[in-house]
Amino acid sequence: MSTATKGVSSDRIVRMVAELAKCVGSEGLVAGQVVDINSEGLSDVGLDHLEYIHIHKTAVLLEASVVLGAISGGANDEEIARLRKFARCIGLLFQVVDDILDVTKSSQELGKTAGKDLVTDKMTYPKLLGIEKSREFAEKLNRDAREQLAGFDPEKAAPLIALANYISYRNN
Amino acid sequence: MSTATKGVSSDRIVRMVAELAKCVGSEGLVAGQVVDINSEGLSDVGLDHLEYIHIHKTAVLLEASVVLGAISGGANDEEIARLRKFARCIGLLFQVVDDILDVTKSSQELGKTAGKDLVTDKMTYPKLLGIEKSREFAEKLNRDAREQLAGFDPEKAAPLIALANYISYRNN
Repeated sequence: MSTATKGVSSDRIVRMVAELAKCVGSEGLVAGQVVDINSEGLSDVGLDHLEYIHIHKTAVLLEASVVLGAISGGANDEEIARLRKFARCIGLLFQVVDDILDVTKSSQELGKTAGKDLVTDKMTYPKLLGIEKSREFAEKLNRDAREQLAGFDPEKAAPLIALANYISYRNN
Repeated sequence: MSTATKGVSSDRIVRMVAELAKCVGSEGLVAGQVVDINSEGLSDVGLDHLEYIHIHKTAVLLEASVVLGAISGGANDEEIARLRKFARCIGLLFQVVDDILDVTKSSQELGKTAGKDLVTDKMTYPKLLGIEKSREFAEKLNRDAREQLAGFDPEKAAPLIALANYISYRNN
């Protein structure tokens, strides 16, 4: 990133490096992985706890991708904040949908073993909320994500909206 | 580095990040470690091969330390090149001295097991050159290192010369 990025000011490249380091380091991916491992076998994993893991383990990867693009593309602080929230929403959405698919689809449809969250100690949204509330939560996350894009050029926002819908309505 | 560095231009911070990434990545530390592991048990490790390993595995750590300091301190390209060469020389010197101490000192003097290079497959400078030639090579590296500092303010260069001498004349 520090050598191959062209046409972006050094100020922005430094900010990108800092952002990526934060996302993958002890405040981001590492924190999520540690809490996930330490939570194995715990019976009292609540919604906040589950969300912490997914925000740090999964959503942060989408957050880094989106925010790095925003910084390099010249976004201002408010735009970066909106795009960060968009990315967190679709990151969490990805996980909620993953949990729902695990209990509603066959292994053949998924292309991987279905129902494996049920036979393990892994906490999931359907286990905590039930299927219907999990679906409502997924819909809310998709809505929240798209709302963040309201102020942007609709043509430029379209691929991001398509991405949110793809994550929402995928079947495997 | 990208968040805690104060009073240094973004241009220089980007250059520091690139330098560190190169030193520890697949062109640096990783390359040295891979070649070292792949060389285990080989009987035909020559001087160039051995130097490649030490330059990439050991010297590169001193190189990163010195060059990052030089960049952040405002050094120009020629000064950075000289300090880089200084660091490589003392890095390689460290390894040559290490190899010599292993065969000339007792475990008590070293504070670690002496003679362990002899009983393993590890290639060393004394094995390739003999003790006397290894000592001459160490002296040459110390001289080459100090020569790189000739153009700098003697007062500022003094700690670096002391470091080269410390590495040369250490007993453990």
